[in-house]
Formats: sequence, C-alpha cells, structure tokens
Amino acid sequence: MGTDYVHGYTPAETRRLSDQAGTLADLLHGGTTYAPGSRVLEAGCGVGAQTVQLVTRSPGIDLVSIDISEASLAQAKARVADHAPHATVDWRHADLHDLSGEKFDHVFVCFVLEHLPDPAAALTRLRGLLEPGGTITVIEGDHESAFFHPRSAQAQAVIDCLVDLQAAAGGDSLIGRRLQPLLEQAGYDDVQVGPRTVYADQNLPQLVDGFTRKTFIAMVESVRDRAIAAGLRTEAEWAAGIRDLEKSAAPGGTFHYTFFKGVGRT
Amino acid sequence: MGTDYVHGYTPAETRRLSDQAGTLADLLHGGTTYAPGSRVLEAGCGVGAQTVQLVTRSPGIDLVSIDISEASLAQAKARVADHAPHATVDWRHADLHDLSGEKFDHVFVCFVLEHLPDPAAALTRLRGLLEPGGTITVIEGDHESAFFHPRSAQAQAVIDCLVDLQAAAGGDSLIGRRLQPLLEQAGYDDVQVGPRTVYADQNLPQLVDGFTRKTFIAMVESVRDRAIAAGLRTEAEWAAGIRDLEKSAAPGGTFHYTFFKGVGRT
Repeated sequence: MGTDYVHGYTPAETRRLSDQAGTLADLLHGGTTYAPGSRVLEAGCGVGAQTVQLVTRSPGIDLVSIDISEASLAQAKARVADHAPHATVDWRHADLHDLSGEKFDHVFVCFVLEHLPDPAAALTRLRGLLEPGGTITVIEGDHESAFFHPRSAQAQAVIDCLVDLQAAAGGDSLIGRRLQPLLEQAGYDDVQVGPRTVYADQNLPQLVDGFTRKTFIAMVESVRDRAIAAGLRTEAEWAAGIRDLEKSAAPGGTFHYTFFKGVGRT
Repeated sequence: MGTDYVHGYTPAETRRLSDQAGTLADLLHGGTTYAPGSRVLEAGCGVGAQTVQLVTRSPGIDLVSIDISEASLAQAKARVADHAPHATVDWRHADLHDLSGEKFDHVFVCFVLEHLPDPAAALTRLRGLLEPGGTITVIEGDHESAFFHPRSAQAQAVIDCLVDLQAAAGGDSLIGRRLQPLLEQAGYDDVQVGPRTVYADQNLPQLVDGFTRKTFIAMVESVRDRAIAAGLRTEAEWAAGIRDLEKSAAPGGTFHYTFFKGVGRT
C-alpha cells in the first residue's frame, strides 16, 4: 500500500491516533466481534490504536496485523503490550502483496483507504485474501461531514487544507461516502454501510475534549506547516482558522462529524 | 410565530412532509413517549405529519396542536382522522401568544424553529408554558449536513439556494447545530442534544426513495421557481443541479443528512 501519508507518522500524530481510539472505540468498533480462533487480518495497523480494540473485543482470535511503516509497527507492538499484555499478534512489516497465498476469515481496515491512490484495487486485493464466506470491515471518515457552531469561513478553510493536501498526496479524505460503491465494485456481496456520527457540545465534555479537540482539531493542526508551505494559507490565516475552530469546542459551541463503517462478504 | 415559510404550504409540499414522516418517524420520534394523561403542546403542527406520530406513540395524552395556518390545520385534522381515528386532538388556530395562562407537561416542536426570525424568543415563550419539571423536545435539520456521492458543485448550488432563500425569509436552515446553545440560552435545564443521521445507498432502497428522493430532493425542488426568480440560478443551472443531485439516489450513489433532536427541562 505504498503511498505518501498526509498524517499518521509524527509523535503528535501518534498521540492523536491514540486519543482518537479511546474516545471513538465504542462508536467505531460496536458490532464488530470475531469468534475465537478466527484468522483475522488487520491491513494497515498504524500505531496499533485499533489493534488494541480488536484483541480486546475479540479475545482468542488469530490476528495478523501488517503495516508498511516499521516505526509504526514498533509503536503498535508497545501499545498492545501495554494495553492488552496477554494478547498475541502476528506483526508483519508488509504490504498487501506480501500476503499472497495466505487466507483469512476476516479483514479489518480502518483509516487506511483514505490514504490510497487506488482504494478499489486495494479492496479487490483484500478480497483475494478472504476465505469463501469471509467478511471485510472498513471504517473511514469524510471531512466534508465536519460542521460546527459557530460557523466560520476561516475555520472551514483550514479544514479544506487537510482535504486538499490529502488529495495532492493521492488520497481522498472524503472517501466515507464512497464506501458502498467501492465495496460493490470490488465484488463484495451483502454490502452494508452505515454512518457512525459524533456530535459534541458542552454537555458532552469527554467528546469535546477527546474528539473535537484531541482528534479533529489536532488532525487539522498536524498539517499546518505543509499548508503554509504550499501557500494554501498564510500564518495569520491559519491561526485565525484554528482559533475559530476552537470555538466549536468552547461553551456554546458544537461539532459534528460522521464516520462510515462498511461490511461486505465474499 | 408569524413569519414567511420558505416551504410547507403547497400540495406537493404536503405530500413531501407526509412522506418524510413515514420514512423518518422511528429515527426522529425514537425515545419520545409521554405518559397517558400528560398535557402535551405541539407547537406548529403543520399538516399533522408529526401529530400522527405523537398520538400513535403516546396513546392517551391530552394533546393540543396549534398552527398559524388554517389550511394546514385542516389537513392535519384529516390526516389524524385517517391514520389515528380514535385519537383526540385539541386543534387550535393559534399563535404561541394565544396560549398564555395555559400550562403543559411537555412541549414538542419539530421543523418549526428553522422558520423563525427569533427562535430563542420562541423557546423562551414555550418555557413559560411548561409546568415545573416539564420537558421540551425540539427536532430540526441542518442543510449543511447534506453531502452525497457523486459530489457535484451544481447540486450543491441548488441546495445552497434553499439555505439562502430560508435566510432571506428570516429563517435558518442550518439551525440544527445550534439547538444546544439555543435551549441553554432560553433557560432550560439538563439540555441534551443528539444527532439523528440518515444515510441512504442502493442497499437501503426505502430510504433512497423515502428520504433522498421524496424528502430531500423534493424539498429542494419546491424552491425552484423562487430560486430562479431571485436570480440565484438559471433554469439550465437548476436543471443540471437537480439532475446531479438525483445521481445520489441512483445505483452507486449515496446520501447523508443529520437531524438534531434536543430535550430540555424546566
């Protein structure tokens, strides 16, 4: 799955991805459990935020977690050792291509397709790794689902930077809405996609802090230097945009975001 | 609550509002039931689409349903007689001001605040009609939550017409995201707001037909003449926008929309 990542590999990003999994775990993983003994592939485990959820929610599975970044894999190992010390994971520094010949009962892919120039091809390759009757579970966001109070053109502009940089790197941060056609095109059967919506206001302080601030705004902030270097925003515009975005996490502010979760079968 | 409505009073609109309630009833009314004997005010019942749900889901309530349009009230009466013939509703051709002196255990307001120039004032007035410990339930959409596949600037532009016309008439079709601060400002306690998200793709044909086509696209189409008369779009641009929007209801298309439901107490 070799491609440039717009985010995911800095220490601040590692913290963000960890915060994200803690806050969103139930929302994203709800409904996903695998029977003990199932052979499960996590394609693109990153720093292991979702790996911890997989081994905790489906004890006894035979999990293979792969990533193309050795640094991320090392962090994922440490995270699982820390949060789920009794879990066994077969970690592989690998690309999807390296798995040919192996077969899995289930594939789990979370926040990976958004980075790929050809997500349909990746889904097709993953389908080839599934046993007959196997399932794939895909989770992705869609940054155009982000809206907030108070509204602000400056805040919207910094979010748009994230979308534009992701697109320039060959990815698509608006991929959530496309999961259903992508899974169909890749030949999966019984495709079911549903929204997983996060809404945070001052009466939901854990979500304000865990999602609006430490997940979403942190993710936007992670592309600051690249956005300014690319001439998308000036330093002053960037600061104004973040300041306005932070109002959505202040009392009287609100924030909305929708993830999409799709399941298909072979 | 006298103000110009951008939509709601044409025969096509009546059909749309009826379709909407059928498709969305569980999503919007889930969690809202009142004990038999409760005195409930439905403020702005329109053509009765939600009234039918109220009397069906909370049998035995003492319901007062008011609206400022006599024509709508007549349709609401006919609808309830048709769908819930044993229900008793105290219909009133009235404004909120006409209710002073009366008290209610619960107030229900759905798709009304979006039309008002001062929704905070309306919420404050409604609070004055509640018994101590009474509740208000408010449901509103937010048209910026609408996004779809395939993306289209022309389709987005026709949606923006609806938002602009509503704003020109003194309303706010982006009000959903503001329910929490509005309820707080009006002095309600224990305010809880949550998203109610609709997602439709070809594997959810009832939602594609009932929501994407017959609710959302129909609502956009209802402002066609006004949008063209106001010079917001040409006839050709309008047709292109609707054609693109309809692709979101075709195989391979997807559509997303989030309603907000808020509850507060006195």
